[in-house]
Amino acid sequence: MADEDFKLSCPIPLSEYPHITLAHGGGGKLMHQLIDRLFIPSFDNQALRAGHDGAVLSIDKSRLAFTTDSYVVDPIFFPGGDIGSLAVNGTVNDLAMCGARPLCLSVAMIIEEGFSIESLWTITRSASAAAEKAGVPIVTGDTKVVDKGRGHGIYITTAGVGVMDHSLTIAPASVRAGDAIVLSGDIGQHGIAVISKREGLGFETEILSDCAPLTDPVQRLLQAGIEIHCLRDLTRGGLASALVEIALSARLHLAVDEAVIPVSEAVRAACELLGFDPLYIANEGRFIAFVPLQQADKTVEILRVQAPEVTPAIIGKVSDAHSGLVTARSVIGAERIVDMLTGDPLPRIC
Amino acid sequence: MADEDFKLSCPIPLSEYPHITLAHGGGGKLMHQLIDRLFIPSFDNQALRAGHDGAVLSIDKSRLAFTTDSYVVDPIFFPGGDIGSLAVNGTVNDLAMCGARPLCLSVAMIIEEGFSIESLWTITRSASAAAEKAGVPIVTGDTKVVDKGRGHGIYITTAGVGVMDHSLTIAPASVRAGDAIVLSGDIGQHGIAVISKREGLGFETEILSDCAPLTDPVQRLLQAGIEIHCLRDLTRGGLASALVEIALSARLHLAVDEAVIPVSEAVRAACELLGFDPLYIANEGRFIAFVPLQQADKTVEILRVQAPEVTPAIIGKVSDAHSGLVTARSVIGAERIVDMLTGDPLPRIC
Repeated sequence: MADEDFKLSCPIPLSEYPHITLAHGGGGKLMHQLIDRLFIPSFDNQALRAGHDGAVLSIDKSRLAFTTDSYVVDPIFFPGGDIGSLAVNGTVNDLAMCGARPLCLSVAMIIEEGFSIESLWTITRSASAAAEKAGVPIVTGDTKVVDKGRGHGIYITTAGVGVMDHSLTIAPASVRAGDAIVLSGDIGQHGIAVISKREGLGFETEILSDCAPLTDPVQRLLQAGIEIHCLRDLTRGGLASALVEIALSARLHLAVDEAVIPVSEAVRAACELLGFDPLYIANEGRFIAFVPLQQADKTVEILRVQAPEVTPAIIGKVSDAHSGLVTARSVIGAERIVDMLTGDPLPRIC
Repeated sequence: MADEDFKLSCPIPLSEYPHITLAHGGGGKLMHQLIDRLFIPSFDNQALRAGHDGAVLSIDKSRLAFTTDSYVVDPIFFPGGDIGSLAVNGTVNDLAMCGARPLCLSVAMIIEEGFSIESLWTITRSASAAAEKAGVPIVTGDTKVVDKGRGHGIYITTAGVGVMDHSLTIAPASVRAGDAIVLSGDIGQHGIAVISKREGLGFETEILSDCAPLTDPVQRLLQAGIEIHCLRDLTRGGLASALVEIALSARLHLAVDEAVIPVSEAVRAACELLGFDPLYIANEGRFIAFVPLQQADKTVEILRVQAPEVTPAIIGKVSDAHSGLVTARSVIGAERIVDMLTGDPLPRIC
């Protein structure tokens, strides 16, 4: 193919977007443009088109989930965690969001020349402790080193394989009109913890990342017979982006009530100070579950018992309008459309 | 744990090696020190201790292989391939080295702000073409963007799951005294192709990377009933490091004959010019197979028919000395011990 033809074949108009920006990694519209126009058509297959946190494979009679994520969080060490625990929990959680129990993880590190071995030891120990807590072995890995000035300390990519012990199809396509939207706990801690460390902000109350494995709460819901339709963890782009992604995939209208979305006083104060909307702040230990309305109270109760320190809540419902929109009713009763941002207010949050 | 105690608990003496160097990623002794002293004890489990290219898992009646690698090759585009095809073939080959047929791959990209979307499109297409050639779908992925000056264009981490259609245990522990060591083709092309592009060296004959999927040759050997004991692809650290790794794992003596190791005239000339030993140069489409002596000729014949352009050869045998050493008989008949280098003569080769 001639050079000019090749350029024209690029599904993203190069005259408009010639270069990658930080926003392309932010979980917002530009990232979805890359995925929808560039990656999905190139790597075209059923599993990828499902638009889920991981792919589902059938092996003999088992259904397996397979997922990966890279972690480039800045700073590497933040209140409540570090890149090691984050990289383990993040992939464990993507498996959990498929309804899978994690079987094994891989850990691949890209380390910058000059990085301290003591820090590497701390991160290795932290990843190991997180894996032990999540009950999953790290069975394979890789180490690469790049020249000084070509990295930023350490980047970690984890991948994971999990197994489904149930027969549900937990995916955006299973969301139904009438479903309740349950949020597993208060939002915004991870993003604020990272940005406060990065920018050297000292809040009165130290805010810790919510970084934690979500296997246990999901397994408890499944074991209690909750007919989960869909799960999504609230990472880059926060609660708002997760809701928009699912509304678009399911082609249904999601209506949430802002007044009941739990946000801690400390996070709310930090967001006001920094001009952030907590709906868009990343979390690493929170998720939304789409469940039949009649099981919503039981879902909240199970999540509350499982982790008394967080505050699960029914935050909205799925209506039968096929709009693909998310609307939020504000504290004063006004309705607004919740959209994805173009990028992310906080780059390199995970 | 107090800070001082924590430092003392680090299994690598911090006074000796306080920082990561490029050599820690080079496939040589320093990398093995990191793996053996830091990662394996931290992530301790059976699969990791096996010291293989991937982990083997049992699901129902199936045996699966699971593996990951990060790719940081510099430059991103080189004669005969690019980081996209390399990242796909590299992980496909790690699965092949477990004797597994690839089922699915993940692709996680860490892109530097300012990277050209056209290059990303080229790499995506190249990865997609490599996956198609290897017959494996890319089912899940991730995209992160890091600030300008915190990366180097693009780094890619792939992970893969494969399935074993046979009942052999292909692993260093299965190597037996008397086994023949078969090399699948001429060595050194990938490393020389990359370094020639990086350093702007123009050789008379352009040397192309040998980057290619190894699934097909391995599957043909299995289908022909070759009782493969162990396989290893010759990436970072080259043929020499692969041999040393297996000799150490199997605790056996490997004796090879340098005169029969195929090296193309072009690669040999480039190595002489640059002062490299072809035994240590990375390859991305070559492997060694440990097979029973009576099946060695048949192994060579199958590999030759499968890829007539390469030149497979029986390069040595496993002796019953439990020395864990590798020795090479030179062209003039002298015997020398082949050791791993501390680092790699060519950093960022994959």
